[in-house]
Amino acid sequence: MKLLDQLTFDEKGLIPAIIAKVEDSRALTLCYMNREALERTLETGKVHVFRRSQGRLMLKGEHSGHVQEVQRLFVDCEGKSLLFLVKQHVAACHKGYESCYFRECDMQSGELSASEERVFDPNEAYGQKG
Amino acid sequence: MKLLDQLTFDEKGLIPAIIAKVEDSRALTLCYMNREALERTLETGKVHVFRRSQGRLMLKGEHSGHVQEVQRLFVDCEGKSLLFLVKQHVAACHKGYESCYFRECDMQSGELSASEERVFDPNEAYGQKG
Repeated sequence: MKLLDQLTFDEKGLIPAIIAKVEDSRALTLCYMNREALERTLETGKVHVFRRSQGRLMLKGEHSGHVQEVQRLFVDCEGKSLLFLVKQHVAACHKGYESCYFRECDMQSGELSASEERVFDPNEAYGQKG
Repeated sequence: MKLLDQLTFDEKGLIPAIIAKVEDSRALTLCYMNREALERTLETGKVHVFRRSQGRLMLKGEHSGHVQEVQRLFVDCEGKSLLFLVKQHVAACHKGYESCYFRECDMQSGELSASEERVFDPNEAYGQKG
């Protein structure tokens, strides 16, 4: 059973991929890959994504240098999503947090608040005013 | 900032949700919620999903009893996906494994193989021959 034969890409040619830390399994982000992004990820060992908002293939971290080195790869029971365990350089989130899931929802009030500290300054990493 | 104001549902009215174990953060499955499924999840404290193949709202584990009790909820930086940390009863995967990501891909060969043991017999849990 080869990986690519087991996958179902959606009507846009994409498959969702959970990216999690290899050290503690914490989810960092959810991204989308087309077949080419997955092949590039497997060839290079670094996560490549299909950025839907820009309509193009990109290396995750190409601007910031915050790349994700693939350590392990899993596929779900239906071949409709992937799970990558990675070594994350610096942080995954473009807002400066280790994980894109840095906002926690209070289950009683429904209010959101940051549950971790920033690990880098996005203004410096991306050269933009925020 | 209330949760529901921060979320973007896709053109089908769905948002993807990573379900992970609260004990060790391991990803169990990726599911999809419409607004009603999310509201039911928040009201009951148990994961409800919109099952795309059946076009209906359901309690995760309604047939098997393998429900997921929500312990913590996070939202990503763009409001386009959710992360639930849950207490999983028995196992998440309908094929009998704790996680739907029970198949690992060898990064050299691309071959898939089960990386964990079954924790229940799906024929017994669902009353089907399989």
